[in-house]
Amino acid sequence: MTEQLSKRRVLSGMRPTGRLHLGNYMGALYNWVRLQEQYDCYFFIADIHALTTDYANPGNVGAKSREVALDFLGAGLDPERCTIFKQSDVPQHSELNTLFGMFTPLGWLERVPTYKDQQEQLREKDLATFGFLGYPLLQSADILLYKPDFVPVGQDQVSHVELTREVARRFNQLYGSAVTPEIAAAESDKELMKAEISENVLERQILPEPKVLLTPSPKLPGLDGRKMSKSYGNTLGLTEPAEDVRKKLKGMVTDPARVRRTDPGNPDVCPVGDLHKVFSTPETMAKVYEGCRSASIGCIECKGWAADSILREIEPIRERRAHFEAQPQLVTEILAAGAQKARSFAESTMVEVRSAIGL
Amino acid sequence: MTEQLSKRRVLSGMRPTGRLHLGNYMGALYNWVRLQEQYDCYFFIADIHALTTDYANPGNVGAKSREVALDFLGAGLDPERCTIFKQSDVPQHSELNTLFGMFTPLGWLERVPTYKDQQEQLREKDLATFGFLGYPLLQSADILLYKPDFVPVGQDQVSHVELTREVARRFNQLYGSAVTPEIAAAESDKELMKAEISENVLERQILPEPKVLLTPSPKLPGLDGRKMSKSYGNTLGLTEPAEDVRKKLKGMVTDPARVRRTDPGNPDVCPVGDLHKVFSTPETMAKVYEGCRSASIGCIECKGWAADSILREIEPIRERRAHFEAQPQLVTEILAAGAQKARSFAESTMVEVRSAIGL
Ligand code: SF4
Ligand code: SF4
Repeated sequence: MTEQLSKRRVLSGMRPTGRLHLGNYMGALYNWVRLQEQYDCYFFIADIHALTTDYANPGNVGAKSREVALDFLGAGLDPERCTIFKQSDVPQHSELNTLFGMFTPLGWLERVPTYKDQQEQLREKDLATFGFLGYPLLQSADILLYKPDFVPVGQDQVSHVELTREVARRFNQLYGSAVTPEIAAAESDKELMKAEISENVLERQILPEPKVLLTPSPKLPGLDGRKMSKSYGNTLGLTEPAEDVRKKLKGMVTDPARVRRTDPGNPDVCPVGDLHKVFSTPETMAKVYEGCRSASIGCIECKGWAADSILREIEPIRERRAHFEAQPQLVTEILAAGAQKARSFAESTMVEVRSAIGL
Repeated sequence: MTEQLSKRRVLSGMRPTGRLHLGNYMGALYNWVRLQEQYDCYFFIADIHALTTDYANPGNVGAKSREVALDFLGAGLDPERCTIFKQSDVPQHSELNTLFGMFTPLGWLERVPTYKDQQEQLREKDLATFGFLGYPLLQSADILLYKPDFVPVGQDQVSHVELTREVARRFNQLYGSAVTPEIAAAESDKELMKAEISENVLERQILPEPKVLLTPSPKLPGLDGRKMSKSYGNTLGLTEPAEDVRKKLKGMVTDPARVRRTDPGNPDVCPVGDLHKVFSTPETMAKVYEGCRSASIGCIECKGWAADSILREIEPIRERRAHFEAQPQLVTEILAAGAQKARSFAESTMVEVRSAIGL
């Protein structure tokens, strides 16, 4: 416990979109599993966030959240070493979100780069909602509730952490020196004045500004060569059976210059080559470059090696996931224990927050 | 308890602006005290709402909330017969608010008549905030959490209840038939399909639409003849000592046509006459009309009668308030018990809400 307390804290979350694909995994979970070695980590399933875009058709958010929890555990997040929980199990997220709204200018939210972008992209969904505009603010609450030192994000999420830092700064400016517990407890004007006079007016960092921990998020190609994405239907599932992975890879696009077996190719312009770069050892990579450029290997052979490399990464995940899948009660308990721990941390922050505001 | 359950439910709230004046009292509390006889009433101190306009300078919201609680009790709200609590003690308000945001179009909030008005009026406060825009939505959450049959409001608040009804309707449309407990509990696609097939697709009224209970809110004149309002500095405090009430009334403006004692006047154009209409008996009213129009009474005499009428209303309030003021621990306990009861009701609604959404 003492060791835990001295560790720096990290928080991150993921929307429950159902079972993860390899791209999701490499972009986040892969890093998280490594972060838990070094930091006191809080990882949450952002089920309320899922509603910002899918409010009209939440499908079975609850079941999707469980799938994601299984993927978390399968990937190797260890509930003994990190805290795993569901956002909706910790109402303090919404409470802090509501309080943050009071002092957050609309302009800050309208200026977040992803706001207009996503609205354009998902035009059919009618995202001119209050919650969609406020989504980066809920994210700020998610983060600041746990006073993390670091928020691990890919490059595309940096602007959201920037907003979080702005929100923390504004909170500390407005309430950091405004109200001490004595002031909050004062029940008459006289007591209040006394408390204000005796107060130390140094601004307190009630909500420290977290730093970005930029994590690698390799652009994983899908089977058709475009970015791997559920909406393109070009994914490899994180826990896909070996034979399916091999079969799908066989159909994957390659360097278009290699029309015949005897044509030399270039792994740097081949999506299969990109997979090798992420999953294969330097030895295999050397064989691929050499063999492809000299046309001494065929694409089928090369794809077989890629499948081997990918399966070396994901087979243990599939096994661990199956182990937890067989024990639904255990998963329920893990999420309950995580929620309990998260709530307790979050509530201690909220006690400070309410008292700082003077509620 | 059985009797309580069969009673129709009423919910209303008030911002903690500090000690109340006579205008605040007649506009709300006076009616509430009567409503508790007939309905199962929930009355709350809207301390989070106070932040929508006063986030930059919350002063001592906590102390102000206690003043308002004392005014509630002084006015005759009886904690044995109604539930009195502080909004910030029930985090479910914020939770429902956050969920409502997800499906509420920005346009609904921008169209609320008070939005542009208040922003104009309070221009120095910079109210272009997310929370100020969302204030009627938080109000919808405040209300719908308790599934009230009625919301007692004055004419100027009717548009807010209209929004609340729209929000309830949209919630029921989106989630009323979408998810049963079986669907929410389904952990595989197969279970989910089975649950969906067996589901009764009738739309459920999870959050019933409350009705407006239009309550009288007489326009009380202040000492200068304008509407009684803290910002005009023309108020009579709800628990002002008798001698102060008499003294203040002596300086009150009267019918400008009555320059001399011998000039006849008209109570219908005199602010003191307006006070009589609210507080005096028909007998006194008759004396005032007769005496003023015939110049057979002086304004001083008339104001003395007005003071008598007002003091008959507020002296018991002052005494009851003093009784509670002397027992701060009792007030703390009343608010704690009220919060407990409100939380328990609110949580039972949230269980339904989360399950309906499928979280
Ligand atoms: S040999 Fe491998 S890297 Fe070269 S084109 Fe074929 S699949 Fe791509
Ligand atoms: S007698 Fe009374 S009602 Fe008539 S002008 Fe004087 S104060 Fe007003």
